[in-house]
Amino acid sequence: MAPAPARCSRRPAIRSSYSIVPDDVGLVRARLEELLALPVEVVITNGGTGLARRDTTFEAIVALLDKRLDGFGELFRMLSYEQVGAAAMLSRATAGVARGKILVSLPGSTAAVELALEKLLLPALGHMVHLVRA
Amino acid sequence: MAPAPARCSRRPAIRSSYSIVPDDVGLVRARLEELLALPVEVVITNGGTGLARRDTTFEAIVALLDKRLDGFGELFRMLSYEQVGAAAMLSRATAGVARGKILVSLPGSTAAVELALEKLLLPALGHMVHLVRA
Amino acid sequence: MAPAPARCSRRPAIRSSYSIVPDDVGLVRARLEELLALPVEVVITNGGTGLARRDTTFEAIVALLDKRLDGFGELFRMLSYEQVGAAAMLSRATAGVARGKILVSLPGSTAAVELALEKLLLPALGHMVHLVRA
Repeated sequence: MAPAPARCSRRPAIRSSYSIVPDDVGLVRARLEELLALPVEVVITNGGTGLARRDTTFEAIVALLDKRLDGFGELFRMLSYEQVGAAAMLSRATAGVARGKILVSLPGSTAAVELALEKLLLPALGHMVHLVRA
Repeated sequence: MAPAPARCSRRPAIRSSYSIVPDDVGLVRARLEELLALPVEVVITNGGTGLARRDTTFEAIVALLDKRLDGFGELFRMLSYEQVGAAAMLSRATAGVARGKILVSLPGSTAAVELALEKLLLPALGHMVHLVRA
Repeated sequence: MAPAPARCSRRPAIRSSYSIVPDDVGLVRARLEELLALPVEVVITNGGTGLARRDTTFEAIVALLDKRLDGFGELFRMLSYEQVGAAAMLSRATAGVARGKILVSLPGSTAAVELALEKLLLPALGHMVHLVRA
């Protein structure tokens, strides 16, 4: 997974942990399970959402989700289509609830991460955390 | 599940049954199975589509669907994004075919129900029923 | 499945095989497995994506996909909504990776095939094949 921008820090949030994991579905999943066991409210991954053989973050994430939030990936790709056209369909960005935490998988490209944060996550993450906690 | 508006009544349709069920995946599913066994063509649920722990209608519905119609939830959220922005992704509205009937799960909010009915269901439900019957 | 237009031929591509299969999930799947075993890079189906009982291509495709590319169906229906409105949700067009090949399921209507090819597949298929090969 590619390095993640720290743009979330513009909102009041504390980054508890950050790590880079090789493109291996078992390693990605194991690291996600460790992160989901921490006292955090949101876990965001960056990269590994494409179609290549090494892109297995989607599979690791989906296996962990108790509730899939299809709307995140859908609206991300809808907005991304305006920016990059047909290539938007190649991103398997996804989100949902895993072990009572929000789990979000973003593509590796900086432009995609900015789009997802600005248009979808920063406006909604606070409410999402509130819903999941309730 | 929240009370459902009776806006379908503007089109020629007969409401066979209506009930309010507690937020429990087993109770929702059991009631849906009863409704799907009635001589009806469409079953519409209202509410329970969100991310909170008590929102389990999506899980109950998906377990019953023989054919998932992902396009309904997708287009609903696309249209909803124009109205409410990022919060549109929080709705797990869905639809499909279960036991030869159309099964639709709408969010609880009145604005969301109006949007789904006006833009998607009222224009298409007649054709959907025809397709499933054929 | 309805006859497929040969519009892909405008781009440098060689059509290796073409066949018409009855609307039977077992026959569709068996033919897809034969096609996926050929030295081809892309397999495209045409038709059988609707809601009727005989429309089982979606089920045959999904059972074969190693990686689902939800964005293809999503963006296709988003673009289709601009053309045909609510009826866009009735198409279960889908795509993904199966046995290292790109597998795409298009609706039967010529207008839908043209839309999918012009707006999504012709701009992106080359890159998709490259990604899957890598």
